[in-house]
This record gives sequence, structure tokens and C-alpha cells, in this order.
Amino acid sequence: MHEIPDAALAALQDRFGDQLLLDAESRDGRTPTPTWLPRQPPAAVVVVRDVADVQDAVRLCAPHRIPIVPFGGGTSLEGQVNAPLGGVSLDLSRMNRVLDVSVRDQLAVVEPGVKYTALNARLREQGLFFPVDPGAAATLGGMASTRASGTNALRYGTMRENVVSLEVVLADGRRIRTGCRARKSSTGYDLTRLFVGAEGTLGILTEIVVKLYPRPTGFAGGYCSFPDVATAVGMVADALALGLLPGKIEFLDEVAVEACNAYSGLNLDVGPTLFVEFHGSHVPPEAEAFRNLAEARGAACGWTTDAQALEDLWTARHDAWWAIHAHFEGLRGVTTDTCVPISRLAHCVAEARGALAEMRLRGAIVGHVGDGNFHVLLMLDLADEDEVTRAKCFVARMSALAIEQGGSCSGEHGVGQGKRDAVREEHGEALDVMRLIKHALDPMGSMNPGKLF
Amino acid sequence: MHEIPDAALAALQDRFGDQLLLDAESRDGRTPTPTWLPRQPPAAVVVVRDVADVQDAVRLCAPHRIPIVPFGGGTSLEGQVNAPLGGVSLDLSRMNRVLDVSVRDQLAVVEPGVKYTALNARLREQGLFFPVDPGAAATLGGMASTRASGTNALRYGTMRENVVSLEVVLADGRRIRTGCRARKSSTGYDLTRLFVGAEGTLGILTEIVVKLYPRPTGFAGGYCSFPDVATAVGMVADALALGLLPGKIEFLDEVAVEACNAYSGLNLDVGPTLFVEFHGSHVPPEAEAFRNLAEARGAACGWTTDAQALEDLWTARHDAWWAIHAHFEGLRGVTTDTCVPISRLAHCVAEARGALAEMRLRGAIVGHVGDGNFHVLLMLDLADEDEVTRAKCFVARMSALAIEQGGSCSGEHGVGQGKRDAVREEHGEALDVMRLIKHALDPMGSMNPGKLF
Repeated sequence: MHEIPDAALAALQDRFGDQLLLDAESRDGRTPTPTWLPRQPPAAVVVVRDVADVQDAVRLCAPHRIPIVPFGGGTSLEGQVNAPLGGVSLDLSRMNRVLDVSVRDQLAVVEPGVKYTALNARLREQGLFFPVDPGAAATLGGMASTRASGTNALRYGTMRENVVSLEVVLADGRRIRTGCRARKSSTGYDLTRLFVGAEGTLGILTEIVVKLYPRPTGFAGGYCSFPDVATAVGMVADALALGLLPGKIEFLDEVAVEACNAYSGLNLDVGPTLFVEFHGSHVPPEAEAFRNLAEARGAACGWTTDAQALEDLWTARHDAWWAIHAHFEGLRGVTTDTCVPISRLAHCVAEARGALAEMRLRGAIVGHVGDGNFHVLLMLDLADEDEVTRAKCFVARMSALAIEQGGSCSGEHGVGQGKRDAVREEHGEALDVMRLIKHALDPMGSMNPGKLF
Repeated sequence: MHEIPDAALAALQDRFGDQLLLDAESRDGRTPTPTWLPRQPPAAVVVVRDVADVQDAVRLCAPHRIPIVPFGGGTSLEGQVNAPLGGVSLDLSRMNRVLDVSVRDQLAVVEPGVKYTALNARLREQGLFFPVDPGAAATLGGMASTRASGTNALRYGTMRENVVSLEVVLADGRRIRTGCRARKSSTGYDLTRLFVGAEGTLGILTEIVVKLYPRPTGFAGGYCSFPDVATAVGMVADALALGLLPGKIEFLDEVAVEACNAYSGLNLDVGPTLFVEFHGSHVPPEAEAFRNLAEARGAACGWTTDAQALEDLWTARHDAWWAIHAHFEGLRGVTTDTCVPISRLAHCVAEARGALAEMRLRGAIVGHVGDGNFHVLLMLDLADEDEVTRAKCFVARMSALAIEQGGSCSGEHGVGQGKRDAVREEHGEALDVMRLIKHALDPMGSMNPGKLF
């Protein structure tokens, strides 16, 4: 546990005044833990307002090797904002200005504390949108750092594809800019992609340039309720093979559908279900082909070309987390995600269902199935030690299964503290190369220590 | 100039036998120079047949710090395969097997010497294709290493987006695998993206997993001949803003159109022209909207929904290089590319045309304009020193212009030897971070030295 030496504390106090917070409530507030991971508060919080603040905080901490843990929306799921070695939590949530929107270049320049929902609200009247939607009140800095995605990733990509350029403060306080504003470049190492997904272990993101897209104006889609899980999930790969690329496609199991019906006032057939939307500048002809394919496989489809009706469906999907909580009243939800090749998805979802039953765990499965990415929402009584132990085993089993099938132990939540064991299994000797890079860029190991490795 | 010490030469001879080539013709043959860059042959060539060959070659060279220069199709444009410090050219062209094609996962696993044309020939009957098409007889290893793209990048992305996973032999001979076979992952540093575009300076790619796509079955498009360059180029951003996303969209100036008419037997109106194709599983409704927009701006359009007619147009586009050579008989073509934000494209193309005239240079402009990427094909008499000097100044001016406008000094050709000066200007202090990474992964500096930095 790295307490802050008196000299450093005095220097921070001097530079930051009331932007430096030392009380327990402030420190605790920067380490929300959505799982069984214990809360590990920092010794201090520095609320930064601009890049100069970030550089100065890093420079004041560096000589004392004080750990720096970046904090944004506090919505990460694998303990990324915990401070296991103490030090300073760098709260970037006040750096929340949209600095520039270029309609013609379809780019936005934002500070890391901007929430994606706020960005989209700002873009609406300009006819543009930003597609990455991980749910919750996530900030773009956190989303970039965990390589987040969401319901639109199949068509629009994840943060990997949608971050164009970054400003980063390095471990020694230097500031660099990665990439440029052109859509592509073949000059030099792709530092942008290196910092995206690095979970704050290589530097602090202080400015993010992201891609924007025209808001679609033609829609078609709905829900398809299938006789069984294998048919529902198998349908996704078949549609993709035919070139039917949806804007969004989500799987919900029976439990999730039942919960959504109750919570969001829907009236869907209760069964393994796909929510699907095709969109574009015009009503896409692919939608009907998809529906016909689903119906030929015994699906009951509710179909619409009305944008608002589809929006309602997606709102229900985004609220599934709360719906499932309401369904399992009194229990706490812990979510885990893996991502597998599409050809292995039906197998892995079946294995997950089998493991849930076998391990006597309650929960629901939802997924961004077009990517092969699915989530198991475990509903737990955290006071029941045996249940928590079984849940931990379940998570480890899901990670091992995904890796064994050629996939990843996380599609969009990241490694943080929760998946550090699995990551060695997944990457093998490549993890040593990651360590070489970590050491080259952060020789003292003070950037978000205890995460990822 | 690194000659190979006798002990190392004996060891290489012992291990590689007739896979080791020392004659001048073989050494010269691995360093084709398509510009004014002098040919800089290696001291030896090792023709590798599998990853064990690559590992052994690297391990035998490492103790003597013998430079290793990877060679594939020999089609790179900025001197990437030159051996300025001598050493060994590692010829990967015989590692040309397609190891696996997964139709359901839409992935292919290939060795680095596979040409993209050969991959596509193999995929045709499976209803799939690989979209990155830089032209010439490029290999996937070289394409990955230079982060290549081509006519499909606007819709499908470049090698950055289309390499899923790599096997890499590092500078010490260790072999690692980056990424996994799932479509996305949020675990660990994105090493795949780090090696893509590294031009062989961090390791040797020995296996590449790439994304595949269903072959489109519905087409619409053609050519639009505009009254002036500004209208033609400006049209691209307007269409994208309306959500009209083509599969391909290319710009050809008057000279290029005239050359293509003569060479490929076309009969297009001679003027600043866009070639455009919309495609999908069905005839895309966006195509008509695009055509209407172009005609409203005074374009004469030749339009079709016939796949073969469109294919002929794209063949002509791919042959533009030869067409322009035929047009300027006796001259040698040197191509340079830059990439700028779409909003700056019309300005930059106008500047390029102005600079050509002002500097008394002949040539044509063609471009993947949907990305903001355009090429100037300079047609030179390489024996005319003054003309070559003016051409070098022109290339430097184009790079400076692109960087000043927020773009990149190369969209798809890479840095190699040709753009090393510009790259410092483009990346600033970020170049120092690239050097840290280079040093961490290749401390002796033997992987493709003299390139990129």
C-alpha cells in the first residue's frame, strides 16, 4: 500500500488546492466494485480539469513512484479503477468538454470525461451519431481504455476501430499525440491502437478523436423468437454468410425476455430471441431476407420499419440489466463476458447454460451475438460464500472455454483485476512482449499498477 | 555495410544449403527500387520454407547483429526491401500456402508469401472474398507490414482492420501469436495492430489470419464525369454525409481517364471522374441517390447494375498505372501518396495540380478518395537530374501539405526509406515512443534497419 510521502502530499496540495481530496468518502467513491472484488481506495484523489493538471499530477507523483489510477465514469466491471497499491486516483470526469465536431470529416474531438450518451445528445441535431454504446454512464476515456463496444460493434466496430487519434500523457509527464485526422495512414507504429485497451497502464488519455456516422434514416427489424437456443444463435452465422449484415443483432435467452417483458412492458413470445435492426440511408432490402430466413427456421417474428418502435426495443435491451435485477429481487448481478469465433458460439452458449444448471447458479444470457460476444449475468447472494465460490469457478470456466475455442476471455469488459489469470492462458508468450512494452513506456510501473498483468 | 562474418556464413550454409543464395543476381533481385532510391542489395538471401527456417535464420544472425530484411512480393514503393546495411534478405515468397479457410467464421489463415490475388482466386468458389487490393503482385505479409489498402478500404477497412491475428518471429527467434480468432477482444495490448504497419522492424510475420467477406451479389454503379475537379472531389464528402457509403469510390483526373480510354478500350467522357460501385446482398437503394446527386451537380453518368460491366471498369482502374505509362511513352512512373481529412481533399488535390504545373512535372492524379487518399503518378525521365530534383521537391511538398492539413504523408505505401524525413514532422514526439518500443523489441536493431526511423 503506497501512502503518499509528506513532501509529495505538500506539493500536490500546493498545486491542486481543493482539487486534491483526501477524505474517505471521496477516496471510496473512486473505487466502485461491481463484483466480489474488494474496494481498494487510493490514498488521495486529484480532480483534474485540463491536460496541464494531468501532466503536473503525473510529474509530482513520478519521483516518489506514487501509483496513478485513472478514473472516469466508474462503470468498469473488472476492478480497473481499484487502487490496490494506494497512490492517487486521477479523476478525469470533469474533463468533459466536446472540443470540436467536424460534420464534413465525421469526427469529434472530446475530453476523456465525456459520456457517450452526452456526445450523442450533442450530435443528434447535426444528423450524426457515435456508435459505441457499452451501456451505463461510461466515459469515452474509459471506453477507449477498455476497448469497449456494445450493440453496434458488428457493423461499426469497437473503440479499436472508432478511435482516430489520441492525446496521451506518458508516465514521465510528456504529452504526445498519436495518429492524425485522416481516415487511414501507413506511417509508423499504430500507437493509437496500443493505448486503446491498455487500461491506463501505459499513459493517461487526455483527448480522444472519434469517428462519427450519419444517423440512419431507413429502418427495418424487430424480434425473432426461436424454438431453441441453437437455432437462434446458429441463425446469426447463416445470415452473415449470406451478406445480411445488420446494424445491430442481440440474443436474449428466455429468462432475459421474460424479465424485459415485465420491466419494459413488452409482450414478446418467451423463448430464445434475437433483436435485430437493419438500417441505412434507405430501408435496407436485407431485412426482409433475414426475416424470411428466421421464419423458415420456425421463428415467430415481430417486424417493423418504424424507427421509434425499434428504439423502444433497444431501450428494453439496454435496460435488460435492471430488468433481470427486478426479476431476481434481492440478488446482486455480476456480469462476465467472453467472445468466441461465430462457428463456436452455439456450442459455447449451450455450455454456459449447462454450467449454470450444473453449478446451481441463477442468471440470464444476453449477447452481442454478431461478434460472438455474450454475457452471462449471474444473480448472486453475495453473503452466500458457497454461491460466490461457485460463481468464481463459473467465470473461470467460461474464460477457459472461450480460450480453448480460439476466442478471448473478454470481448468488451477488459482484464482489470478480474481476468489476470485468464490473460496469461490466452496470450501465452505474447504477454511477455506486452510486459516489454509496459516496461519501456512505464519503467517505474506507476501507471495503474496491478491491472492487466 | 554489414558483410556476413565467415563463422555465420558457414552456419547459414550448413543449415540452409541451397536455400542460401549469394550470387549477385539473387541479391539484386531482392531489392527492386521503383523510384530514384538506389538498389542496395543484401550480402545474402535465405529462402525460407516454414517458420522453423525463419526462427533458425534469425537465431543464426542474431549473435552477429546481422541485419534481417524481410522480402515478399518485392512490390513495396518506398524502399522497404532495400538492405542499406547489408545482411540477409529473408525471402518469404515460398511460404505461400493458404493454411485454412473457415467459411463460417469468415477467416483465412495464410502464410506471408500468399498473394492477395491468389487468395481471392481460391475463395471465389466459396462465395467469399478478401477486400484489400493494393494492386501489383503484393503478398499478404508485405501488405500487413505496410498497412496496405486499396479500392475497397472505405467500406471494408485497410490491413489494420482486416488482420485478425498474427504469428510473429521476434528478433531473438522466439515465436509468438497475437490476438485470437474471435472478432473482438478487450484483453491486453493490441499487438496485432502493432506489428501491422511496422514494416518488418519489430519481427517477421510468419502466419496471418485475415477477415473474409461474402461476395456481393447485388451491384449498381458506374462512372460520373464532372465539369471540374472541385465538384468531383467535393461530391464524395457530400455523399458520405448522406449515408451513401459505396463499396468503392475512385477519382481519376483527365489525364488518367484519357490514358484509360486508350489503354483499356473505354469510351468515357474525358474529365475529372469518379468510378463508384455500391454493392451488397441485394442491389443497394443508395446507388440511385448517389447518381441523382452527381447529375444534379452537372455530372455525365454511365450507370449499370451489371457485375461484369463494373468489373471491367475496375480492371481499367487497376491498369491505370500501365495506361499512364503507355500515355507517357518512354518515361518512368514514380508514385507518391498522401492521405488527408475528407474536408481538405479538394484543396489538397487542387494544390497538387497547381504544384505539378508550377514545377513543370508531368503525371496524373488518381485516388481512393473516399478515404481522403490520393496518388500522384509522376512520369519522369530518370536521366534528367533536374527533373528528378523537382520531383523530389514535389514529393516533400505533398507530404508537408498533407501533414499541415491534419493528414498523413502516406495513406498506404508506408515510410520505408522514402518518407523518413516526413515521418518525424508527422508524429513529433510520438516518434520517440515508437523508438522506445523498437528498442524494447529489437535491442540490437537488426530487424529491417534503416527503415521507418
